[in-house]
Amino acid sequence: MSATTPPDAVRDGDLIAAIDLGSNSFHIVVAQRVLGQLRVVDRLRETVRMAEGLNALGGLDPAVRDRALACLDRFGQRVAHIPRRQVRAVATNTVRQLRNPDVFLRPAEAALGHPIDVISGREEARLIYLGVAHEQPPEPSQKRLVIDIGGGSTECIIGRGFQPLERESLQLGCIASTRRFFPNGKLGRKRWQAALTEVELQFQQFAATYRNLGWDEAIGTSGTHKALANICAAMKAGTGGISREALHKVRDRLLMAGRIEDIDLPGLSDDRRPVIAGGVLVLEAAFAVLGLEYLQVSKAALREGVLYDLLGRDGADDPREASVAALMQRYGVDVAQAQRVERTALMLFDQVAADWGLGREDRAMLSRAARLHELGLAIAHSGYHIHGAYVLQHSDIAGFSQQGQRFLATLVRCHRRSVPKSAFEQLPERLQPSARRCAALLRLAVVLHRARRDETLTGIRLSASGNTLRLHLERRWLQARPLLRADLEGELEDMLDLGVALVLDLA
Amino acid sequence: MSATTPPDAVRDGDLIAAIDLGSNSFHIVVAQRVLGQLRVVDRLRETVRMAEGLNALGGLDPAVRDRALACLDRFGQRVAHIPRRQVRAVATNTVRQLRNPDVFLRPAEAALGHPIDVISGREEARLIYLGVAHEQPPEPSQKRLVIDIGGGSTECIIGRGFQPLERESLQLGCIASTRRFFPNGKLGRKRWQAALTEVELQFQQFAATYRNLGWDEAIGTSGTHKALANICAAMKAGTGGISREALHKVRDRLLMAGRIEDIDLPGLSDDRRPVIAGGVLVLEAAFAVLGLEYLQVSKAALREGVLYDLLGRDGADDPREASVAALMQRYGVDVAQAQRVERTALMLFDQVAADWGLGREDRAMLSRAARLHELGLAIAHSGYHIHGAYVLQHSDIAGFSQQGQRFLATLVRCHRRSVPKSAFEQLPERLQPSARRCAALLRLAVVLHRARRDETLTGIRLSASGNTLRLHLERRWLQARPLLRADLEGELEDMLDLGVALVLDLA
Repeated sequence: MSATTPPDAVRDGDLIAAIDLGSNSFHIVVAQRVLGQLRVVDRLRETVRMAEGLNALGGLDPAVRDRALACLDRFGQRVAHIPRRQVRAVATNTVRQLRNPDVFLRPAEAALGHPIDVISGREEARLIYLGVAHEQPPEPSQKRLVIDIGGGSTECIIGRGFQPLERESLQLGCIASTRRFFPNGKLGRKRWQAALTEVELQFQQFAATYRNLGWDEAIGTSGTHKALANICAAMKAGTGGISREALHKVRDRLLMAGRIEDIDLPGLSDDRRPVIAGGVLVLEAAFAVLGLEYLQVSKAALREGVLYDLLGRDGADDPREASVAALMQRYGVDVAQAQRVERTALMLFDQVAADWGLGREDRAMLSRAARLHELGLAIAHSGYHIHGAYVLQHSDIAGFSQQGQRFLATLVRCHRRSVPKSAFEQLPERLQPSARRCAALLRLAVVLHRARRDETLTGIRLSASGNTLRLHLERRWLQARPLLRADLEGELEDMLDLGVALVLDLA
Repeated sequence: MSATTPPDAVRDGDLIAAIDLGSNSFHIVVAQRVLGQLRVVDRLRETVRMAEGLNALGGLDPAVRDRALACLDRFGQRVAHIPRRQVRAVATNTVRQLRNPDVFLRPAEAALGHPIDVISGREEARLIYLGVAHEQPPEPSQKRLVIDIGGGSTECIIGRGFQPLERESLQLGCIASTRRFFPNGKLGRKRWQAALTEVELQFQQFAATYRNLGWDEAIGTSGTHKALANICAAMKAGTGGISREALHKVRDRLLMAGRIEDIDLPGLSDDRRPVIAGGVLVLEAAFAVLGLEYLQVSKAALREGVLYDLLGRDGADDPREASVAALMQRYGVDVAQAQRVERTALMLFDQVAADWGLGREDRAMLSRAARLHELGLAIAHSGYHIHGAYVLQHSDIAGFSQQGQRFLATLVRCHRRSVPKSAFEQLPERLQPSARRCAALLRLAVVLHRARRDETLTGIRLSASGNTLRLHLERRWLQARPLLRADLEGELEDMLDLGVALVLDLA
């Protein structure tokens, strides 16, 4: 579709960077595109332990917040000279769980100098798989299980080639599990067994589906796995991977230590000691429920996936375009009408983008919202804009951040009928002005195509100045369309709730 | 599927009855099944004008309510000796718009002696089409447009044979339009033209879809059409139908009268005079936007549709079963898992139905909820019970009343995780106890099949006494399944929120 042509995709020689605000550590990786491939030129990792600062009410401890902001400030210096669209920062489980993420994200984005996308657990799973697939290219026909134990969540993916087939995310990470099951630092066999049963229950939710699908090789990623592979190697119980037997040996040594602070394992760093117990617990449950014998360990993870995803964006393989197409198909969207509205919405956008300070990403979002605006009709005609917004906000949509999904959902929510006062509140402040303006453009395009037939809209011109939107129409053309006229007059009022003063300029 | 076998469907000689609580009048029709066909044996109609009693806040004028209850009391005497499952009462637009329908429905159901189903506009459209199709059997290959102008809403359907293809319902009826556009009773040409544009805008929403689909004949049903056909005949402007030309003549005579109370048209009853203007307005808009030239008029309407629907229920053609199958397909439900859970849920149901006072309709609902409980997975895994409930509550699902959809949605909402205090509030009080009990049975079935594999559950027995549910299990069998055991122990607490005390009885 027209919105996806890449006028300025990443070119050879360009730098791109991925920042990963994990629950245990923050990472940055900078790479250069060389002959269409990526060459990593810089890497940094800081142990921030965001998950430790999360309290039960969804608040963040001020000391931990300051640690995170200081780290982002340092990372920001590394990417200060890289153009905005060649940098992507993603935040995962701990930020997802904040009651009010914007309170953290506003200063965090200021420190980093770039927007930060909050991604869902299953989107995280998709990106992890992508990172591993590029780092260790798979046999095209073979299936691969990938397990990533983060600080706050654990992702399990089965894929074939570069394509994930199943993606799951559990609210169980090495920090979260250690805090929850061993809050006083004591490690006893009985407590361990009870904790194991609870964790196994979580894996049980999808274990049968995974085992039915099957896999040819299993790979672990992330710090927990790397630490365990080191320990196994140091214990001479493996070379680069983790066997079931070695894992049980490590567990027995944890239990023998009796207390987290007394854990003494060869190859274990001081940094990893406080969170290794939860990681071993989660992995033991995964081995048991999924029937694993041996796990290879990969160095790649989320941040590499973000890099490769960034490289593929805006091109023919942009996963967001595939997701939009899949949604249109599942919900049986009337493609002809969607395309009419998209075409006109983008025509209007191009006439006012400069005056309204709207950018390339806004254009892509407007295009997607236009293609999806009638999605809710599959649920019911009555209130279909509300149903469509519900689906877009809650669905697991590959390629989108949570803010991106909310942006789309908000445009669809506001494309007809009255605009609720709270409609834009769920968006980060920085996105609200452009969302309001894109919503206004979508409304106009929808009204202009209400007759649902192919019609060339000659003589229609739009101009913008401040919050005033001026629609220039031929008087005689409009007079021949009394229904359109009535609709447009209705818009004069509804648009005010978007903060837009619409003026009909008849010539 | 097993739940749909009709052990006691309507037999020859049986009486069945349909009651229609319309916004203008209430109807009852009683028919006898004779050689598989229906023979109408009694009909009553009372002009209640429910819509007149609806105020802007969704309240109902006490005088109008009393008029309605007195009518239902009289209707109740007609159906006092007909078994409950051979009677169906449906309420339409005015009851849909009540802020608190239960306040009206409780005394209304008591007066009638039968439950009253509130149906959505599109379900109303489906039933109207069914009524017309049986009254005037269509050519199998021809398409038919049916327009029903009620007191509070207008339904437009295109169908082929007995199958509706498109169904729409507009919040525009003869009473509602008369009140809204001519509140002081004055009829002027200018006011008429402005009102017409507004009504046309409503039809415009789906006109292009309808005109693209096309039809071979157009039929009007309901009181407005019958009154207009009488007037046209009396004016010698048609025989049994309504032409565009005749409709415009009638409109011109309305405008000449200048005031509603001065309308003088041949063949118009005193009863119809106060609401004819709104009816003509809506029909003129339909003629204009849909490009109609001539409308036949049918005597059949909603109530006949309800009768034929009742006859088809519980049989192989029950439209509710087709709807459940369509939902399973659209949302890609895992059929094997759905069937496992359904089978076990019904096995448990049959063991406690007598002690828990659960009936045939509860069993059918539990079966449907079991087949649909994972529907929300198509949106996202996280919170899928909430997404599934959203879809079931808001979708246009053929064959179900609004209370029926809420019942299903509530079971799906409560099939896992914690049960919100408000979960059952949206159900009529009379349905709450059985919904809580069915939800408990569904939860148990889901927990027992969490491993998602075929497994014969030997030695499981359920018994109920008061609000206590006793699950009898073999101790050794359960000991071999620690995950199931942990799940069941979790249920002990969650079930309390359903008002059920679960006891595990290990032998």
